[in-house]
Amino acid sequence: MPRKIIIDTDPGQDDAVAILLALASPQELEVLSIVAVAGNVGLERNAGNALKVVELSGRTDVPVHAGCARPMRRTLVTAEHVHGQTGLDGPDLPAPKIALQPQHGVDFIVETLMAAEPGAITLCTLGPLTNIAMALVKEPRIAPRIAEIVMMGGAYFEVGNITPTAEFNIYVDPEAADIVLRCGAPITMLPLDVTHQVLTTRERLAAIAAIGNRSGEAVAQMLAFSERFDLAKYGSDGAPLHDPTVIAWLLRPELFKGRQCNVAIETASELTVGMTVADYWHVTDRPRNVNFLRSADADGFYALLTERLARLP
Amino acid sequence: MPRKIIIDTDPGQDDAVAILLALASPQELEVLSIVAVAGNVGLERNAGNALKVVELSGRTDVPVHAGCARPMRRTLVTAEHVHGQTGLDGPDLPAPKIALQPQHGVDFIVETLMAAEPGAITLCTLGPLTNIAMALVKEPRIAPRIAEIVMMGGAYFEVGNITPTAEFNIYVDPEAADIVLRCGAPITMLPLDVTHQVLTTRERLAAIAAIGNRSGEAVAQMLAFSERFDLAKYGSDGAPLHDPTVIAWLLRPELFKGRQCNVAIETASELTVGMTVADYWHVTDRPRNVNFLRSADADGFYALLTERLARLP
Amino acid sequence: MPRKIIIDTDPGQDDAVAILLALASPQELEVLSIVAVAGNVGLERNAGNALKVVELSGRTDVPVHAGCARPMRRTLVTAEHVHGQTGLDGPDLPAPKIALQPQHGVDFIVETLMAAEPGAITLCTLGPLTNIAMALVKEPRIAPRIAEIVMMGGAYFEVGNITPTAEFNIYVDPEAADIVLRCGAPITMLPLDVTHQVLTTRERLAAIAAIGNRSGEAVAQMLAFSERFDLAKYGSDGAPLHDPTVIAWLLRPELFKGRQCNVAIETASELTVGMTVADYWHVTDRPRNVNFLRSADADGFYALLTERLARLP
Amino acid sequence: MPRKIIIDTDPGQDDAVAILLALASPQELEVLSIVAVAGNVGLERNAGNALKVVELSGRTDVPVHAGCARPMRRTLVTAEHVHGQTGLDGPDLPAPKIALQPQHGVDFIVETLMAAEPGAITLCTLGPLTNIAMALVKEPRIAPRIAEIVMMGGAYFEVGNITPTAEFNIYVDPEAADIVLRCGAPITMLPLDVTHQVLTTRERLAAIAAIGNRSGEAVAQMLAFSERFDLAKYGSDGAPLHDPTVIAWLLRPELFKGRQCNVAIETASELTVGMTVADYWHVTDRPRNVNFLRSADADGFYALLTERLARLP
Ligand SMILES: [Ca+2]
Ligand SMILES: [Ca+2]
Ligand SMILES: [Ca+2]
Ligand SMILES: [Ca+2]
Repeated sequence: MPRKIIIDTDPGQDDAVAILLALASPQELEVLSIVAVAGNVGLERNAGNALKVVELSGRTDVPVHAGCARPMRRTLVTAEHVHGQTGLDGPDLPAPKIALQPQHGVDFIVETLMAAEPGAITLCTLGPLTNIAMALVKEPRIAPRIAEIVMMGGAYFEVGNITPTAEFNIYVDPEAADIVLRCGAPITMLPLDVTHQVLTTRERLAAIAAIGNRSGEAVAQMLAFSERFDLAKYGSDGAPLHDPTVIAWLLRPELFKGRQCNVAIETASELTVGMTVADYWHVTDRPRNVNFLRSADADGFYALLTERLARLP
Repeated sequence: MPRKIIIDTDPGQDDAVAILLALASPQELEVLSIVAVAGNVGLERNAGNALKVVELSGRTDVPVHAGCARPMRRTLVTAEHVHGQTGLDGPDLPAPKIALQPQHGVDFIVETLMAAEPGAITLCTLGPLTNIAMALVKEPRIAPRIAEIVMMGGAYFEVGNITPTAEFNIYVDPEAADIVLRCGAPITMLPLDVTHQVLTTRERLAAIAAIGNRSGEAVAQMLAFSERFDLAKYGSDGAPLHDPTVIAWLLRPELFKGRQCNVAIETASELTVGMTVADYWHVTDRPRNVNFLRSADADGFYALLTERLARLP
Repeated sequence: MPRKIIIDTDPGQDDAVAILLALASPQELEVLSIVAVAGNVGLERNAGNALKVVELSGRTDVPVHAGCARPMRRTLVTAEHVHGQTGLDGPDLPAPKIALQPQHGVDFIVETLMAAEPGAITLCTLGPLTNIAMALVKEPRIAPRIAEIVMMGGAYFEVGNITPTAEFNIYVDPEAADIVLRCGAPITMLPLDVTHQVLTTRERLAAIAAIGNRSGEAVAQMLAFSERFDLAKYGSDGAPLHDPTVIAWLLRPELFKGRQCNVAIETASELTVGMTVADYWHVTDRPRNVNFLRSADADGFYALLTERLARLP
Repeated sequence: MPRKIIIDTDPGQDDAVAILLALASPQELEVLSIVAVAGNVGLERNAGNALKVVELSGRTDVPVHAGCARPMRRTLVTAEHVHGQTGLDGPDLPAPKIALQPQHGVDFIVETLMAAEPGAITLCTLGPLTNIAMALVKEPRIAPRIAEIVMMGGAYFEVGNITPTAEFNIYVDPEAADIVLRCGAPITMLPLDVTHQVLTTRERLAAIAAIGNRSGEAVAQMLAFSERFDLAKYGSDGAPLHDPTVIAWLLRPELFKGRQCNVAIETASELTVGMTVADYWHVTDRPRNVNFLRSADADGFYALLTERLARLP
């Protein structure tokens, strides 16, 4: 029986690839909804991009909800400098024909978790954690019902990407991240430490483009656009690929290595705000609340991604 | 036409008196709902106390909603040492016959504000600001639709009552207070600077007890209970009375004096967390976001309260 | 036998009056040195002002040392808007003929304390606490040798004068204040709570001017200058007078009332930095490290000041 | 003409090796003094260890001063768990016959810099930065006279060693580090990023032991002791070697690689206090105040160290 997941996301090219990877894997994953959140660009565009990706995949049976349009207490910071003005620059995807669900994304998360058996539903977060934190505050009884939160976010050895210490998803809403990390549910974190190991090399992008379907073509165009910022910044052979690691870990956890340790979020100091302080070496006695992944088998990851994208239209 | 208000509250004896004062004033105030929040005691008891107070007043047409059971990111701090185990110790009120509304209080606030004309609805907050902040994050478009937020909370010259710098309502959920104070809606704040001027002297309590109705008797019993903590602490001739000042200001603003100035919430430092930093002397250039009241006509206040309580059963 | 004191100061009109009050009281106080620190204006001017005041008093036997020219880790903030460009605007005092001692003020403090019997020397601080904190770090063994630190600084009920929460002396070097307050020596603090009660009314200034000596004339001119800022700000009948309260407390402690409580310095948050958080109501279990004075007999204070100034040339 | 340096240090085995490396290189480096500071162990032991190391080297002409016994505002944290109770466990060095200089180390630093030509003297810091910061506050005019500060301290990609974010030298006195990093003098920083690349492998320690002189034997014993903690923690093939990289960089800068960038110290938040936030990727516009080294030629480093130690007795 496939694992039931809700994907909370701010698409974003890498979010789009993650969604496609999930939708291409119905034997393992049942996507209950894609819930949009403000992040890479504003909520309206992120939600519209989610609709476009669902249509690209051919899986228009999957509902899309819009969640929160702003972080809990910070002014929204976006990343058009990486993702382009639409948040999904690269391919020329048609305007979506399907519509958003009328229900607020936070309410969908709360009601779905409260209606299901405890442990039945996994939350996959690919953006700022506003929706999940809002759901936890609005209805604290969902916390023990969450099977697991699998999260792209954070950075430790790899350091920050939006400030010297903070990764973007956490930085946009650090209070939300703090709430989520202390909620008591099992958490697996895919930080930059992992995502900076799965680089979009020429060969890997070429393999995706060579699949020959519309999804592969769109993915190749998305990543060719979004990698430009990081290639210029890091001078590496290919850009990091972030959000699909969440889905890949659900599908093939053996591709990743890490350890259980405490992760806490800096919210008090402007210099380091949004940092994910991982006690990787266990030098404190703080509770080991996160399965903090540190490395990935990059070739295995791209093999999985390419194989699954080939199953889509 | 009476002013439409939503009362967000954590009853609490002084909350109960404030609710009674509002319900006793239908010509001036139309109470759309009483929304409970965690604060003085846990949400369940606070909501139950709201039901009891509504029944005491005979106004069982007023709906009661339950909102959030926890602060946004802090562990809930309660005040049984002041209010007793039930939160409403003192009178022996019967178990309520009416029931809570099924809708979540945050959703009620959002939907009511979105359905009404902009500027039609005033929010009166008598407890931690969790519900209001949650509504603002869940649906930011409510902010310009709020007529005014009239808030019991904060302290400046009078200093804190739960820590050396923080007043209880703000301290319980400082992040929520911060969100609310920066939301752009007009705000009037009734801080300890005001409430420590309206003391429950022997004469004033006797006048309320002498009304001769069940509401007056219950109020006298409530305040005789809740004043004990402050009498022991401050050694003053009567205890402060907090939440009814919000309703009194709506009914008779001329009883109060203050000025427009910036008020900001300390959230970064544990030493001063929850402080309401009022720029009363205008020594900064921060925006003047609050009508910060500093003094009250205590005799006028108690005359109003006694007169209105006499209108209830 | 007179009490041996070192006056650490940033003159400053009120510092000057405090110094004159001390030098006019040789039966009670033996002034070992006047040590200048950066504060109201830069170190060079503050030190020069100290020399002028010593000459005005006729007590050119009292040495003057220069201490630190900058706070420990903050950029120096000065108050020419209150004290004028020279720091001592008002009277036209001649350029000093006596010279500064060659020794650094911090070294003087350390060596004098180490050479004397434990408990023999009291430190009177009228400015930022940089010199005292530097001495404590350079030679921690002085701490148990200090008889007492009597400090003008801080504010609690009276709120801040340089920011909404901070008094000037503490704000200029909050880290130094923190070090001093935690050093273990007995501390008496004269905060704005006290100094805002001893106002320079017309009558009081006239009485000082009517003494008829050059010191009284200079003091009247100083205070007529420095009061202008506070009169405009507070609209009160006379301005606060700060630093002389330290000397007045040494001479006549019965003029003041207060209590032993914890005082801690905010150094972590920019919103409240420099605040003196006094646990006046004993709501925490922090150690009671300060004799925190809250009120003064203003008439008694000015009677003392006027009587003593009359003893000077 | 050799470069004039002052070594500020808290010996410590790795400090001892650094001192020996400097004293073994008189053609390149003239050591004006070794100034002790509290850090790895208390000041008295650190100063005594400095005397022992000078005697071991045979260079008893080099004066040793004691500086500050405590950090500026934090309680001293020491590291006996790494360095042993003496701070220099391992070899059995005789009690020193030479004595400390009577002058305080901070005064020595101030007077030496003020007496020399600007740019004549380099400060090498191997411990907490208390002494240097105290000198900068006591006499700010030294800042433009410092040729360079070459500092073992900090961590960025390599993360902290005493907390999840802080390196020991910075953590012990973060306010001092902050003062030093903002003083305006040229700064080169040797962080854990570098020192965790120069590991004490079996072969390298064996080569040092094989020199056959007393200094080589003592160094081999020191490092065999101090590496135990890190070997257990990291499970690596040899422990990091920290302080000698400072001297190695002065002798052979081509062994190291890095870049000019901003480094700021976290002092506001307890979660991340003591972190060296390096803007290695230039994502902020903060001033580029530090030559931040990130990698080292480990074989070249150990070849240099072994060759120089062979020149000693
Ligand atoms: Ca994303
Ligand atoms: Ca209340
Ligand atoms: Ca002063
Ligand atoms: Ca060291």
